[in-house]
Amino acid sequence: MNREQYYMNLAVEMARKTKGQTEPNPAVAAVVVKDNQIVGTGIHVRAGEPHAEVHALRMAGEHAKGAEIYVTLEPCSHHGRTPPCADAIVEAGIKRAIVASFDPNPKVAGQGTEKMKRGGVEVITDVCREEADAINHSFFHYISKQKPYVRLKSAMSLDGKIATSTGESQWITGEEARKDGHWYRHRSGAILVGINTVLTDDPMLTARLEEGGNHPVRVVLDNHLRMPKDAKLLKDTTAPVWIVVGNTVTDEQIEVFRSKSHVEILRQQQETVDIDTLLKELGERKIASLLVEGGGTVADSFVRSRNVDEVITYIAPKLIGGRKALTPVAGTGIEHLHDAMSFSIVEHTQVGNDIKIVSRKEGE
Amino acid sequence: MNREQYYMNLAVEMARKTKGQTEPNPAVAAVVVKDNQIVGTGIHVRAGEPHAEVHALRMAGEHAKGAEIYVTLEPCSHHGRTPPCADAIVEAGIKRAIVASFDPNPKVAGQGTEKMKRGGVEVITDVCREEADAINHSFFHYISKQKPYVRLKSAMSLDGKIATSTGESQWITGEEARKDGHWYRHRSGAILVGINTVLTDDPMLTARLEEGGNHPVRVVLDNHLRMPKDAKLLKDTTAPVWIVVGNTVTDEQIEVFRSKSHVEILRQQQETVDIDTLLKELGERKIASLLVEGGGTVADSFVRSRNVDEVITYIAPKLIGGRKALTPVAGTGIEHLHDAMSFSIVEHTQVGNDIKIVSRKEGE
Amino acid sequence: MNREQYYMNLAVEMARKTKGQTEPNPAVAAVVVKDNQIVGTGIHVRAGEPHAEVHALRMAGEHAKGAEIYVTLEPCSHHGRTPPCADAIVEAGIKRAIVASFDPNPKVAGQGTEKMKRGGVEVITDVCREEADAINHSFFHYISKQKPYVRLKSAMSLDGKIATSTGESQWITGEEARKDGHWYRHRSGAILVGINTVLTDDPMLTARLEEGGNHPVRVVLDNHLRMPKDAKLLKDTTAPVWIVVGNTVTDEQIEVFRSKSHVEILRQQQETVDIDTLLKELGERKIASLLVEGGGTVADSFVRSRNVDEVITYIAPKLIGGRKALTPVAGTGIEHLHDAMSFSIVEHTQVGNDIKIVSRKEGE
Amino acid sequence: MNREQYYMNLAVEMARKTKGQTEPNPAVAAVVVKDNQIVGTGIHVRAGEPHAEVHALRMAGEHAKGAEIYVTLEPCSHHGRTPPCADAIVEAGIKRAIVASFDPNPKVAGQGTEKMKRGGVEVITDVCREEADAINHSFFHYISKQKPYVRLKSAMSLDGKIATSTGESQWITGEEARKDGHWYRHRSGAILVGINTVLTDDPMLTARLEEGGNHPVRVVLDNHLRMPKDAKLLKDTTAPVWIVVGNTVTDEQIEVFRSKSHVEILRQQQETVDIDTLLKELGERKIASLLVEGGGTVADSFVRSRNVDEVITYIAPKLIGGRKALTPVAGTGIEHLHDAMSFSIVEHTQVGNDIKIVSRKEGE
Ligand SMILES: [Zn+2]
Ligand SMILES: [Zn+2]
Ligand SMILES: [Zn+2]
Ligand SMILES: [Zn+2]
Repeated sequence: MNREQYYMNLAVEMARKTKGQTEPNPAVAAVVVKDNQIVGTGIHVRAGEPHAEVHALRMAGEHAKGAEIYVTLEPCSHHGRTPPCADAIVEAGIKRAIVASFDPNPKVAGQGTEKMKRGGVEVITDVCREEADAINHSFFHYISKQKPYVRLKSAMSLDGKIATSTGESQWITGEEARKDGHWYRHRSGAILVGINTVLTDDPMLTARLEEGGNHPVRVVLDNHLRMPKDAKLLKDTTAPVWIVVGNTVTDEQIEVFRSKSHVEILRQQQETVDIDTLLKELGERKIASLLVEGGGTVADSFVRSRNVDEVITYIAPKLIGGRKALTPVAGTGIEHLHDAMSFSIVEHTQVGNDIKIVSRKEGE
Repeated sequence: MNREQYYMNLAVEMARKTKGQTEPNPAVAAVVVKDNQIVGTGIHVRAGEPHAEVHALRMAGEHAKGAEIYVTLEPCSHHGRTPPCADAIVEAGIKRAIVASFDPNPKVAGQGTEKMKRGGVEVITDVCREEADAINHSFFHYISKQKPYVRLKSAMSLDGKIATSTGESQWITGEEARKDGHWYRHRSGAILVGINTVLTDDPMLTARLEEGGNHPVRVVLDNHLRMPKDAKLLKDTTAPVWIVVGNTVTDEQIEVFRSKSHVEILRQQQETVDIDTLLKELGERKIASLLVEGGGTVADSFVRSRNVDEVITYIAPKLIGGRKALTPVAGTGIEHLHDAMSFSIVEHTQVGNDIKIVSRKEGE
Repeated sequence: MNREQYYMNLAVEMARKTKGQTEPNPAVAAVVVKDNQIVGTGIHVRAGEPHAEVHALRMAGEHAKGAEIYVTLEPCSHHGRTPPCADAIVEAGIKRAIVASFDPNPKVAGQGTEKMKRGGVEVITDVCREEADAINHSFFHYISKQKPYVRLKSAMSLDGKIATSTGESQWITGEEARKDGHWYRHRSGAILVGINTVLTDDPMLTARLEEGGNHPVRVVLDNHLRMPKDAKLLKDTTAPVWIVVGNTVTDEQIEVFRSKSHVEILRQQQETVDIDTLLKELGERKIASLLVEGGGTVADSFVRSRNVDEVITYIAPKLIGGRKALTPVAGTGIEHLHDAMSFSIVEHTQVGNDIKIVSRKEGE
Repeated sequence: MNREQYYMNLAVEMARKTKGQTEPNPAVAAVVVKDNQIVGTGIHVRAGEPHAEVHALRMAGEHAKGAEIYVTLEPCSHHGRTPPCADAIVEAGIKRAIVASFDPNPKVAGQGTEKMKRGGVEVITDVCREEADAINHSFFHYISKQKPYVRLKSAMSLDGKIATSTGESQWITGEEARKDGHWYRHRSGAILVGINTVLTDDPMLTARLEEGGNHPVRVVLDNHLRMPKDAKLLKDTTAPVWIVVGNTVTDEQIEVFRSKSHVEILRQQQETVDIDTLLKELGERKIASLLVEGGGTVADSFVRSRNVDEVITYIAPKLIGGRKALTPVAGTGIEHLHDAMSFSIVEHTQVGNDIKIVSRKEGE
């Protein structure tokens, strides 16, 4: 490991631990180093707040003159809600900038580097590129495709059941696995379930972690607006609720929900909700990552429209059986094996007594 | 690692690689060492052939006098098909015997050790005990419970499907996983499927490995003897076929199969086959390990009668969907989650593009 | 790994990478977390500058209210050059403080915790204690013993030679090992050699790293003040030079060096310099860690006075031979093997083509 | 890992554990496999006894017909003390031979393969080649260079001392390291020390291991035949003693030792023993590996004549000091660093409290 990797590793570790809290912005961290001594550290806390480079330069103060700055993502060069970091770096007298990964957005990529070079800053790129890219994998998908990165999450038994044939489903997996699941809610822009799940489980869909969590926008696919008035989702206002309905739903039906300030009805032109249209709209509403938690029919609609980028599967070492017991993906399903959506395994680890498998779409 | 573990490790590695070829006997290996030099090696090739100790002493010849013998399982002391190894060890002038694990059969355990001690041989036990026990895990189950160790094997998609809703099932998992599955057939005393599987897939149920395999006895659960006359199982005589039928099946129906020398009909007293009764009979017929390869209803009958000791699950990173698509365990299934059969994870590895999970019944 | 360890690991990694730049203060880092989101990061850059907690709280701003703070060392509670961190934490409205290790100084230990508890802050201790303690291992030695932590560094061949019998010593080990050595200079309060080393090699004794280094105070043991006027040490003023002489050296001899502002002569009461007296004085001069780089006689004086806390040995896979060739520790040496200074191995890794062994005094 | 590697791994593990007991022959093991079941195992116990293939075929008996044989070294094809294995393999009806490594001897290499092919046996080569080659690394050196593979073994302190300045040397390293050293004696054809070592330590030079060891030929470099009459080497007859003297030693002096049947005097034509001449003669006397255990002057003569193939260094975490204390290689040594004998690190592990470094000559 050379010097640049030594310091960039710290920035990568800092950025990795802010994953999910900067939606729809990427997770970024910066470390300022002078004479092989760390003089400044910074992370991007939340969209709308100062970028990582600004915090790090502020801590470094005078030390920044003639120093190096390590940043996990190319510094910005356009005037967004905060002044461009490329300029701040030049003004602080930084001698050398080491950059890990680049924004896939052609309009942006390379401009920060250009600005710093014109300002006399030596720029070195691609240091720990792979580790840094992995952190913002879903952000890069969102930026290049203008729609959220879709994760399908499910918990099932060794024989593929998400409930007994009598519908009992609480709980298939153990406590650690369930908590692991809540971290995904904490790190996702939005969570999505079908109306059947609301009618059967009446879930809150919040990120219940020790010491609090960052609650995703709660999206419910409800073609005919069957949402019950006393649903927990309506009473609990910690996070917005977007109910996606088909064109058979009338203005009067929608009017009923007007009183709920945290609730919004998104009506599509077709009778049943179209997934591609939905993802395009969520992209426009700045949702960079979507966590689909079922039920079976909703999952099937995402699978048949090929809109699953990552699959998170928790498997409990239990056998439940039952011809009629539900599985993670129901609906009509695919007819021929060669039409199945195939993924590649990214990770398989034991979480408590259960196994967690993370798979990613080919080419993702 | 001390001296004893250094040499016992070799015996354990030799025994491990003969797993499955000595049914219904345990896999055993022996290494004779004189002045820290290996002078003899031996394994138990097959039931009815000389035990490992005999081969090792034969190779050691004169060197055995004053040497040590390392054996993965306590040497036998009764007159079976081969003379007792405990006597052979004493006669060969062995000074010291190092034994890894013990036969759980109370009638036998400790007798070999007694005999060797009376013959002036120093005996050291429990060296690499854990690794040696693991090799004969299923044999110890068979010996103490007088019925085969049952492994339930299945291959499914990430969403638990073993076929598309249209019934297409060839093949869910990749080539490596399928070949891995044939190694289990190679190492099992018998393989079992339900008649529906025979009617739909017309399988051969042999261990098709490169360079040949050891074919298990082929057991078919067929309450009403619906076995088709032209089934491959009947035409292929490489291994016995035992068709287990209920009491509604008449002598005339059975008579039809009399001409097939490799086929035998086992009729039970109930109308539908009872798993406990079946396992007891297989135990009496010296079947030490049974590989249940489905279908769903057969698997369910094993689960509901709690007769699953180990679950081998291959999971392909694919999503198939389909409310009606089949899963590994169908039938009625259990009603309440707390009645589910629970296991603990023993191993999870990647095999080709798929994941293999091995789970074992608690307390197994 | 639980939540607390997850966030404390980041603080530990940040503190670890500031090791050596905060002499004589300990290396400390802090991370502020709100609703499982990182809102502030900070490190202690250098003695005399704000502590890690202050930087982290400054970055967190409003977010600190009701947040948690993770600190690798108990926050200070006395008025030093900077206001007490324990108060700053209470004032910022922090709800919960998680502390890894404690100052061994009885006067200080526990006071910060007391103050925070009185201020209504919940305090959790000993999270990642071992990793955090390891970072400030030498600082804790300095604090409890009021004298620097002594590292003896040497580079030798496989047959123990630091030079050929003709005195050729540049270079025994490869470039990576030598650079690794300069990192120890970069992280030490002071470096020490004997006058013979100055007379033979005329060294600069600075930390020559890519992108600059933090140069230690340069100490020369020179009983009879034989320091040559044109020595590089005298011409190069990047770091102070302290020449330690015996009582045979007169004021006139000392007067000659008065003109060099970066040079100071420390005269002891004995004819030859006493190591215990030297270390006591270096402690008073706030030198927390001393890197002894030879020659053989100086090393022997540290060994015979048992003043070696850690040994860093680089071994090149070469054979040099030669009865008269020098070795790392010469002088009279110990007479009986049981009097030898014994250490325990902490680390052995390959650095370039050479092996690096780090050993620590028993009980250190 | 494919099938061939799965079975060859077992043969390699068996051969590895017979390393050193087959001097001057290579260590070889064989495994016979039929239908993926092990039916025969064999090792080469000692020079003059049957080869591994013969033992394995003998155990396999009838099973060998149509089976595979896995051998770690190409089967022999010439009539030595035992019939050629290549013929035995053909006669046994083996279908397929899998060979790991090849004899470097051009006269032999490939002939066994030819013979088997002509006999209708399919031959597959280079399976686990690297692991198998490593086992007989020293044998291949001996075969291609007609002189023993020389290992220089020493135990020293962190500052390179093999004794205190007063000569106390028992013991620098701990018990585990010393026992590890005896395994090298157990596995070497001969051990060599200088007469000074005999005069100071009066050593036995045998392989003292628990449960006995294989004692190497004991070679003493004694230019002027100063061997004391009451030396333990002369009284202890467990292994031959070869005393190598210069041409100043008279027949009368040699005559004195005639009565010792296990002692032999090798007189060279020069006044002081020449290492190259010695190694050539040892090669002719079928010594395949030589363990040089010092003293310093003898080691220096091997270093300056570049006759060191491998260096085994045990380092105790102790500091001894002392200008006059002895080091592993004394004598005149090399003058310029670039003339030093350089090696590459093969292994560095902790053995008890000490570090063991194994280095090999470049290109070995
Ligand atoms: Zn920016
Ligand atoms: Zn037996
Ligand atoms: Zn403080
Ligand atoms: Zn042969």
